[in-house]
Order: sequence, then structure tokens, then C-alpha cells
Amino acid sequence: MRDDGRNENELRKVRVEQDYIKYPEGSILFEMGDTKVICNATVEEKIPGWLKGQEKGWITAEYSMLPRATDVRTRREATQGKIGGRTQEIQRLIGRSLRPVVDLKALGERTIWIDCDVIQADGGTRTAAITGGFIALVKALQSLVEKGILKNFPILDYVAAVSIGKVGENILLDLAYSEDCEADVDLNLVMTGSGKFIEIQGTAEGYPFNREELDEILMLGEEGINKLIEIQKSILGSIV
Amino acid sequence: MRDDGRNENELRKVRVEQDYIKYPEGSILFEMGDTKVICNATVEEKIPGWLKGQEKGWITAEYSMLPRATDVRTRREATQGKIGGRTQEIQRLIGRSLRPVVDLKALGERTIWIDCDVIQADGGTRTAAITGGFIALVKALQSLVEKGILKNFPILDYVAAVSIGKVGENILLDLAYSEDCEADVDLNLVMTGSGKFIEIQGTAEGYPFNREELDEILMLGEEGINKLIEIQKSILGSIV
Amino acid sequence: MRDDGRNENELRKVRVEQDYIKYPEGSILFEMGDTKVICNATVEEKIPGWLKGQEKGWITAEYSMLPRATDVRTRREATQGKIGGRTQEIQRLIGRSLRPVVDLKALGERTIWIDCDVIQADGGTRTAAITGGFIALVKALQSLVEKGILKNFPILDYVAAVSIGKVGENILLDLAYSEDCEADVDLNLVMTGSGKFIEIQGTAEGYPFNREELDEILMLGEEGINKLIEIQKSILGSIV
Amino acid sequence: MRDDGRNENELRKVRVEQDYIKYPEGSILFEMGDTKVICNATVEEKIPGWLKGQEKGWITAEYSMLPRATDVRTRREATQGKIGGRTQEIQRLIGRSLRPVVDLKALGERTIWIDCDVIQADGGTRTAAITGGFIALVKALQSLVEKGILKNFPILDYVAAVSIGKVGENILLDLAYSEDCEADVDLNLVMTGSGKFIEIQGTAEGYPFNREELDEILMLGEEGINKLIEIQKSILGSIV
Amino acid sequence: MRDDGRNENELRKVRVEQDYIKYPEGSILFEMGDTKVICNATVEEKIPGWLKGQEKGWITAEYSMLPRATDVRTRREATQGKIGGRTQEIQRLIGRSLRPVVDLKALGERTIWIDCDVIQADGGTRTAAITGGFIALVKALQSLVEKGILKNFPILDYVAAVSIGKVGENILLDLAYSEDCEADVDLNLVMTGSGKFIEIQGTAEGYPFNREELDEILMLGEEGINKLIEIQKSILGSIV
Amino acid sequence: MRDDGRNENELRKVRVEQDYIKYPEGSILFEMGDTKVICNATVEEKIPGWLKGQEKGWITAEYSMLPRATDVRTRREATQGKIGGRTQEIQRLIGRSLRPVVDLKALGERTIWIDCDVIQADGGTRTAAITGGFIALVKALQSLVEKGILKNFPILDYVAAVSIGKVGENILLDLAYSEDCEADVDLNLVMTGSGKFIEIQGTAEGYPFNREELDEILMLGEEGINKLIEIQKSILGSIV
Repeated sequence: MRDDGRNENELRKVRVEQDYIKYPEGSILFEMGDTKVICNATVEEKIPGWLKGQEKGWITAEYSMLPRATDVRTRREATQGKIGGRTQEIQRLIGRSLRPVVDLKALGERTIWIDCDVIQADGGTRTAAITGGFIALVKALQSLVEKGILKNFPILDYVAAVSIGKVGENILLDLAYSEDCEADVDLNLVMTGSGKFIEIQGTAEGYPFNREELDEILMLGEEGINKLIEIQKSILGSIV
Repeated sequence: MRDDGRNENELRKVRVEQDYIKYPEGSILFEMGDTKVICNATVEEKIPGWLKGQEKGWITAEYSMLPRATDVRTRREATQGKIGGRTQEIQRLIGRSLRPVVDLKALGERTIWIDCDVIQADGGTRTAAITGGFIALVKALQSLVEKGILKNFPILDYVAAVSIGKVGENILLDLAYSEDCEADVDLNLVMTGSGKFIEIQGTAEGYPFNREELDEILMLGEEGINKLIEIQKSILGSIV
Repeated sequence: MRDDGRNENELRKVRVEQDYIKYPEGSILFEMGDTKVICNATVEEKIPGWLKGQEKGWITAEYSMLPRATDVRTRREATQGKIGGRTQEIQRLIGRSLRPVVDLKALGERTIWIDCDVIQADGGTRTAAITGGFIALVKALQSLVEKGILKNFPILDYVAAVSIGKVGENILLDLAYSEDCEADVDLNLVMTGSGKFIEIQGTAEGYPFNREELDEILMLGEEGINKLIEIQKSILGSIV
Repeated sequence: MRDDGRNENELRKVRVEQDYIKYPEGSILFEMGDTKVICNATVEEKIPGWLKGQEKGWITAEYSMLPRATDVRTRREATQGKIGGRTQEIQRLIGRSLRPVVDLKALGERTIWIDCDVIQADGGTRTAAITGGFIALVKALQSLVEKGILKNFPILDYVAAVSIGKVGENILLDLAYSEDCEADVDLNLVMTGSGKFIEIQGTAEGYPFNREELDEILMLGEEGINKLIEIQKSILGSIV
Repeated sequence: MRDDGRNENELRKVRVEQDYIKYPEGSILFEMGDTKVICNATVEEKIPGWLKGQEKGWITAEYSMLPRATDVRTRREATQGKIGGRTQEIQRLIGRSLRPVVDLKALGERTIWIDCDVIQADGGTRTAAITGGFIALVKALQSLVEKGILKNFPILDYVAAVSIGKVGENILLDLAYSEDCEADVDLNLVMTGSGKFIEIQGTAEGYPFNREELDEILMLGEEGINKLIEIQKSILGSIV
Repeated sequence: MRDDGRNENELRKVRVEQDYIKYPEGSILFEMGDTKVICNATVEEKIPGWLKGQEKGWITAEYSMLPRATDVRTRREATQGKIGGRTQEIQRLIGRSLRPVVDLKALGERTIWIDCDVIQADGGTRTAAITGGFIALVKALQSLVEKGILKNFPILDYVAAVSIGKVGENILLDLAYSEDCEADVDLNLVMTGSGKFIEIQGTAEGYPFNREELDEILMLGEEGINKLIEIQKSILGSIV
């Protein structure tokens, strides 16, 4: 049994507050245990310069943490005058995770910005940003369909993400921060509603892992993803 | 009567959610109508270099808005690689507003960081940051007293802030964003619980104003400040 | 009596050297006691992007201090790679102070840059920059009228600025640096030739002030402004 | 058969030029087909501040490409004033890949910098940087042993990296740039000489992949890693 | 005869206003025709980190132009967030030119900053900065001797700089801006009072020059330097 | 005799590896003793904005050193977020040196980028970059002629550069790094195949030099330049 009483294959409690901020086309507060991320989706009626002439749209993400989302205050990236490597890695990952489930041609020449702002962090912020960011994205696309701007709903599949880790001798699903600190292996998994992989990022922090461990991790991850997609379905309805 | 049904001398509804984020020494969500600001106070056991040897503490503030706190998405300052002039002005104002009500000698050689992050903006974000930031500051100082780190509670007075503007022919208290856009005069007032001025910042946006108008603005502002300090007292109790 | 022998309501000696630099459309060296500011006005035949289509012009200001304008050498902002908060605050203030007295429609689609470079600082550099910047601005506009580029002279009123402070028990006009350092209250006032307020920025540095003190400060400030506008009139003639 | 005549499970020709630059403690030119990376290892007798007091060393990496390492000239990051997200991702990956095979305690309080500069790029630059960077690292550590600075050789295992992709219907080992551009799935694999995983980074570029495909990719990758480690052994000898 | 009536070997009129700014240890306004440079020398009682332990001092220079020192307004380097290549080249040149005539051992562990701020530019600003910067430097060193901080006056020789150019068929001394624009060859010469070279920087702008032309340029330059050093002597007295 | 056995007027061994990188229009590895510079020439079919409408092309250069091109590792300029003064000086020098031997009208509205990346530095990197950069430039222009993009070959002359220094009592040609460190005088000379000067940059590092020494330096430099141009001719053939 884990510190917070969960079983090895148990997700933390997920809570989704819809229509959280009033301005964005899609906005939720996504909570996974004590990790809380505001996910806002903005529709912008233009595309990046390098995409011109391809008659399709774009999904891009930005990620940030409030200075005191963490136990010790972190200096703001704006104050440092640059975006750190970890932040860049995460926002690129969120974009890569969401784009494969959107029909960019059907989206038309517009960009959806997914802003993921972590107001409280307790591990798994990047996977929470993907799972919650997908909900905000869908909300924004639904509003475009409702307004008649989009004729066809351009979502191809659900997508969710979860972390799995090896802590001591145990493979655990959905690591809290205290577990993440002790993990020898840390793997983030992004999968679709139809059970396919979009992204696998596994890292051995000091302890290379073998094939059997990898298989166990992937199995546990898939289990978690399925539960998260059930939650998405309960909020968004049947969209594919 | 105003767009949202308020009288000229009426504040928007204030809502304070205490213990909002779990890590900071003081943390609230401060709402004033549709303006929502997370105010987190962090205690840091060191002081800025230039204060060394003076045997006193420091209060400093940082201010930021989520990209979609506004109707149109704003580019992040971290992405731009620098903090804009407006942001710097506001965070300097917050610091100047809070320091005069703290006995910095009694605080000892430590810094209190007040992070004000606007998650939804509808006018008056800087005044909300001051009024809410004071509450977070007091909460953090109370925790220092409770832990026995501070012997004496170093707060000298309450402090709150409000905006007043001239819109058309009317002097209005606590401008919402739509009113602020039309205002010819815009004045932010920071006052203490004992009715003294800490900061007056009045600007004629295209329409210079006369002395009678100034007097009316100051009177209305004082009225608003008094109501805000009542709300602070209902939350913090009698602290001075 | 003050350190430099002035009465409480006495301005420092003002000296204006006209046509100071040969290239700008308007150029003066403005001295107020030992504070010396080069004020250059540049006419640029274009407007900022966000003003496009509004058929009006723009007034903007930049402010800087030479490294050794001060007693201790200050590091250049160019070397630091960014413009500090204080500088940004001041240049925004100069712009806000000058725009309300210009008929921006009549100015047409052009920008006037007001560069205020402090070569020697002894307190009151921002108010000197406004009072002197106005003279340089008028000179530049007069040259546009003389060249037939502007048909109508687009100035609506005079504008000047002054600081007032509470030092010990005294309310003093036009603080020198040594007085400013000791001041409990510091207020900058920007007013027009017709006695209206454009900007009030009052700050209690450690000592909140009451209404009677504010009234006394405003009265003294108005007196100083009137004298400064007399000096402007003696240089510029009757322009409104 | 592939464009360059290789079989699906065939690596490009590997060429290692030893002692390439005369100053670094370890220096090679690592070529994998037309991808050419200078890998220099520098020993620095200090550690990052955050590691102080832990009595161990650190391995860190920097990665860069010459502007004309690519078909179209890329702007230098120094000229842009910041390091891009892709570069940061890669240099973090190189560091994470090399650290698990080094006994950082045995290394002592020193840092090894691995500089990977791509002079010609034809796909797989990050995996080449890891495989070649390991050789440079070992060379530098061997020199420390030879000089008597290190008593024990602190290498725990070999490490190499390779890319595998799904292009059309085929799973291909070690993608050249033209193949990488067409790939639906792109996976980078970092493994040790004892067949364990250090890092798996798989991305579906537009085409989510299933479990069977993942298994096939991992098998092909392991095959490639084994060949690369054979090459490392032929250069470095038996070091573990 | 030249545009301004000078002969080919004639300097522009030099004017030196002493004790120009009240704070610096040495301060002059140096004018050479319409080129006007404020030269301020600051004594700082510390040395750069890399000079520690060598028991000697340092001379360093910074150079800047006001935005409207030129006919067309130039954007401030602080606004651009970086110092341009031309500025860096010039400030390095000023430092290199002044250091060889100072006995850095005798100066002791202190730094002299030479700030050269061009308020009006009409060609030859870098050479004016050197010739004027030397005067400000000597003034600052004299003040150190007067205060008893320095026992021995650490100046070894005079130093002055001048530009020479080939315009059309003529070799001209001390180019004004209009001449500089048309010059095929532009050479800046820094020489000592004893007729030795400290720096030669000659550039063919589109027209490579031969040895006879070089000899003529050097002879004319030496003539100009001698006159400038006479002017320095008339101000500073006989200091070596 | 010198450390490496050379006579005073002897160049280090020059080695040129042609077609070094496969993508650039011109690419060589230029070695001069232990100094090794990759010189890549890129043709870009556009010109800088300020050159528009003049119907001519542009030659520009960028220069960089790998962190471990030097004995002690140097921090990357990209990591520092800015290009240092030395780098800027050198890249401006390379551009100025190459432009006078190109007929920019005949080049047409295109830019040639000369990227000089020092992979190993042992003194004279800037002169090696000019001598080698010229070869890469010619190669790129030859390819434009071969492809029929250019009708006339726009090269007007050869150009090469060399350093000469005074070390102790000796005037030495082509300083190695160890000699450069001890030199009292350091002069870089850029000359054409027809024996004309393009650039002279001589600096007295602590020891001002007289006219006879200058003459001797120039004579030795010319000798070195002639040998370098012979080498260029042996590679490029007779091109003017």
C-alpha cells in the first residue's frame, strides 16, 4: 500500500471543473490528486508562417507553473528572461500528443493554443496537462461547431496520458511527487482511446531497466489510460 | 445605474477563498466581481544583498496574468524574454503599498514574496492584488508567529486598494473592465485602516480633470477602501 | 530654510538652452538646479502598428541617465540587456503627460519621439523631463508648421510637472536629491496651463499621510506648476 | 531495400577518428553514414552548486549544429540569443543517457562536459552524439586514471543509442534524414552493454502505433545497439 | 579646399569644457567641430575578477550615442536588449588605447571607467572619445594624487587619436561625417606624445590602397596627433 | 629559431581539404599549423533589407569557436545569450575583408554567408578565417557560374590575411598562440593578390612601437600574404 493508501494500479482522484475561466473557448480546472492545472484552449484565426499554403490548422501548447505551485518557491521564467529546458520539453510534448488525434485539414486554417498553467504541483503535471488539455481542446472545437464555424467535428480519437514508475521493487501507476523523487524508472505514456501509442518517454534515473519491467510498466499504463478516457467520456460524451 | 446593476458607489462582490494553494505560508484566491487573483505569500529566510547589515526584512511582490485571463489571448512574458513595463509598474506598486504597514525591523532578516497571479481579469487587477496580497501576507506572518519564529506580529495597519474613475459625467467606484475602457480619468487609491494615504495614482486619459473632480474621486475611493477593510477584518480578525 | 537656501515654496533655478543639439526637430538642455536633461524631439513619419487606420498621430518618450549622472556610477541598461522597472515607469509617465495636450488627430499619422537623457541628476529628473520635454515637443511641432507640413498647430494647452514632498515636518516644493532621500511623502504632479490635473503620483515612503497633508501638497504643487508654465511661455510665446 | 541500399536492420557505416582535437581530455570525430559529430570531453575540477556536499561528480552535455550542417542554412542560436527547445531536449537527453553508466561517487567532485558539435547532419544526430559521446567520455576518464587522478575507473557499463522508425509499412533501423522525414513513428532507444534500457523516446508523428509495432521496433533497436557496442568495444577495449 | 573651408591637413576646431558634470572624478565635454562627447572618468576601488592577485589596476571604457546624436534617430541599445558590434569594437579600442600610457602597477588595485557619451556626432566620434577620454582619465588620476590616495602619478605618456581618409584623390585629416561617407580609405590612428603607435586601424571601403598612400596617410595622421597633444598639454600641463 | 623550428619569416604549414561538408555551395577545412577552421559558403537568394533597390549583392560572415577549440573550455555564446565583442569584431573584419574583392553588382541580388567555425585554435584564427573564407567564397561563386545562375565570375582579386608580431626583439610572421601571448605588438594584415592593403589592424599590447618597426612588420606581412595567395592559386587556379 502506498503513502496515500492507493493500490499499485490505482489512479489518484480526478476532478474536472468545467467552464473555469470565462474568456477561453475551452476552459477547465483539471485536478489529479493534489496536482491542479488550469487548461485553457484559445482559437486563433491564423496559422504559423511555415504552415502557409497547406490548407490545414495547427495545435500548439504552452506550459507554466506558478512560482509557488511547488513546496519551495521557483523563480519565474519571465524574470529569468528565458524559458527553461524542462518547460520547453513539456510544451512540445503536449503539442505532439494532441495533434495526432485532430484532423488538421478539417480544422481549417486556424490555431488552437492550449495553455496549461499548473497552480499546484504534486507530480504528473505534464500528463495532467495532456489529459486535461484534451478536454479543453474538445470544448473549444465543440464551440466552433456550435457557432457554425466548423462543419465537421475534427476529433479522431480520445487521448490521455499517465506516468508509471518503478519505486523500490514496485511498479506504481500515477506517481505522486514524493514517489517520483524515489523512482528508479519513470515513464510517461500517451495513448489514444483505441489503445494505440502516441508517445512513450521512459527514463532510467540511475537504474537501467529490463524488458520484463518495461512490459509490466506498459500494461499498468494502459490500464490507467483506459480509466482516464472513461472520465473524459463521462464529461465530453461520445465524440468519435 | 451601471451595466452590472451597481450604484456609483458600490463595490463588486468580494469573495475570498482561504488556504487556496497548499504549499505557501499564506494563500488565498481573491475575487472582486469577475477579477480573480491567486495571492500567495512565501517566507524566505534571507534578504536582498543591498539590505544586508540593516537588521530588517523586506516585502516584495511579483504580478502576472495567465495568457487567457483576458478576452484576447496575451503572449506570455516568459516567451517574450522580458517583463513588460506595465507588469513592472504593478509589481513595484504592490510592494510599495504593503511595506508601509509592516514593521520591517520586527519582521527580522527575512523576505516575504507576494505572488499575485491573475487567472481572470475584469478590471482592477492591481488593486485586487494589493487588497488580496495583504490578506496572504498577514496569513504568512500569522504562521510565523504560530511557529514561534516571530515573537511579535509585525503588522502596523490594514491596507486596501480600489480604483475610481470618471466615465462620461459620472464618478464610479471600482471600475469593471468595460468601464475602465471608457474612463476619462482613472485613479488608483491605496489607503490604510486608519484612513491614511499610501499611494495615489491618478491619470487623465485624454481629459485633464479639475480639483472638484479630484475631491469627489478621493471621497468615493475612501468609502470603498473602508468597505474592503471591513471584509479584511471579517477574515483576519482584529490584528492591530 | 533649506540646505540650498530656498524657501519651502521655491523652485530651483530653471535654465533652458535652446537648439542644443543640431539634428533634432526640437532640442533643448533643460536645467533645474543641478538636474540637467537633454530633451530631443524627433519627428518620424510613421505610426505604431496598433494605431493604423485611426488617422491620428502618437507621442512617445524614452528616458535614460548617463552612468555618471549620479554620485555613484550606475551600470548602463544596455550592458544589463534590459530596461529597468524605474526607467519604464518614467518613460510611460512622460508619454501619458504629453499626449493629453496634443490634438493627435491634427498631428496626423506621425510619431513624435521625446528623448530625455539625464546628464546630471539631482532629484526631480522625471518632472524635469516632462517640463523640458514639452518645450522640445512644441519646438518640433512649430518646425512642422513652419515647413508647411502641419496646417494647424496641434497643441491644446501647456503642461509642466513638479515634485513636492514631506520632509520632516515640512512640505517642500521641488525636492533636490538630498531632500528626496529623507522625504516621508513624495508626490509628482503634472498639470496643464489651465490648472487641470493630468497625473498625480503620490507615495508614502514609510509614512502614510492624511488628507490635510495631501491638500497642502497639491496647493504647493499648483503654485510650482504655474511658475514653470510662466517660464515655458517666456520661451515659447503664447501658443494656445 | 532502402535508398542507400541498406537492409531494414542494417546500420549505416560507422567511422571513429580518435584524438581528433588536440586539447580535450577525450576527443573523437564520430561518423554514422553522412552524420558527423565532433565529441569532446572536458574534465573540470569543480561541480555544479546544487551538488555541493554530496561527494560525487557530474556528467553534463552540450549539443550544437553548425549553421550549414543542414541542407538549408540554420540561424545560429548565439545570434538568436537563446537555445532552442530542440537543442535543450537533446542535451538533456545526452546527459541522462551517460550518467547511469558512470559511478558518480567514484568520479569524485569533478564535472565531465560532453560537447557534441554536429558538423554534418543526415539524421540520427542525437543518437550519434550519445554513442560517440560515450567514447569521448571513456577516453577522458582513462586519461584521469593514467594520470593517477582517479584510482578506480568509474565506468559501470557501455551505452549506445540508435533510432528506429516506421516508414510506410516497414520498420527500419538507423534512419537517414530522408527516411526520418517520411516516418510515421520515430523512436530513439538508449541501451547498455548488458541489454538494459536507459531511455525510450517514441513518438507517433501523425500515426499512433500499436503494441506489436512497438515490440518489433524494440527488437530491431536492440539489434542495432548490440552492433554499436561491439564497435565501442573494438575501440575502447574491454572496460567493464 | 574642403566643404567647411579647411585645408587637407587641418583639424577641426577643438573645444574642451572642463569639470562638465559635477560627480565624476574627471569630467569634460570634448568637442571637435560638431562632434561632441561627454567624457567622464570614474574611480572604482575594485578590479575585475580575472585580475585578482596581480597587484595592478585596470582602465576600461564604455561608449554610447544618444539616439538623436545623428541625423536620423537611432534606436537605443538598451531597447534592443544588446550592445551592437560597432559599439563593442569602439569601447574595446578606447580601453586598448588608454592602457599602454598608464602604469597599471602604480595605479594600484582600482579600476578607472571612462564613459564616452556622444551627444552630437559629426564623424570621428571614436577618436574624439580617445583624445577626450585621456583628458578625463588624467583629471581623475590627478584628483587621486591630490587626495593622497596615489603617491605617484601613474601616467607614462600623452595619447591622442585622429582619423585620416582618402576622399576622391585627396588624403584628408580629421574627416567630418560627410567626408567619411565618401571616403575610399578610412584609417584611425592612436599615437603617444613621444610619437609611437598604439593602434592603427585602416580599412579600404571598396578601394584597396597601396603603400605610398599608406605612408602619406600615416604622415598626415602624425601631424594631427601632434596638434592634439599640444591642446592636451595646454589643458593638463606638463605631466610626463 | 622559433619554438616550432620555424624561421622568423616562415608561415606554418597550410593544408586545405576541399568539399569538406557536403551541403554548402563552398566548403573547405582550412588548417594553418594547428589552427583548423571549417569555412562554409552559403548562397542565399535574398539581400538584407537596407540594401533593397541597389541592385547588388552582399557578403557577410559569421565566426565561432567550438568550446574546446582552446586549451581551457570556453562557454558557448548561445548559452550566454549573446555574442561577445571579440566575435563581433572578427566577423565584421571577415566581411570587410572579402567584400572589396567581389563585384557586388555582378553578384546580383543575393547574399553569400561565410561561416567560419574554428574547431581547433592555435593563434591566427581570424586571419585563417579570411584566407580560408576566400577559398570557400570562390568555390560557391564558381558553382553559381557552373549552374548558369551567374554569367560573369564576380571576383576582382585574391585576398589573404596574416598576423605579424613583435615578440621580444624579433619581428615574427604568422604567430602561434604561445607567441601571440608574449607579443608586444600584434598586427593583422589583409592584402590582395595585386599587393594592395584592405585592412591593417595593429595594436601595441603594452609597448607602443615606432615607424621603423611598423615598416618591418608590413614588409614581413606582405611576404607572408604572397605565399598564401600562391597556395590559393594552386587550389583555385587563375581566377582573375
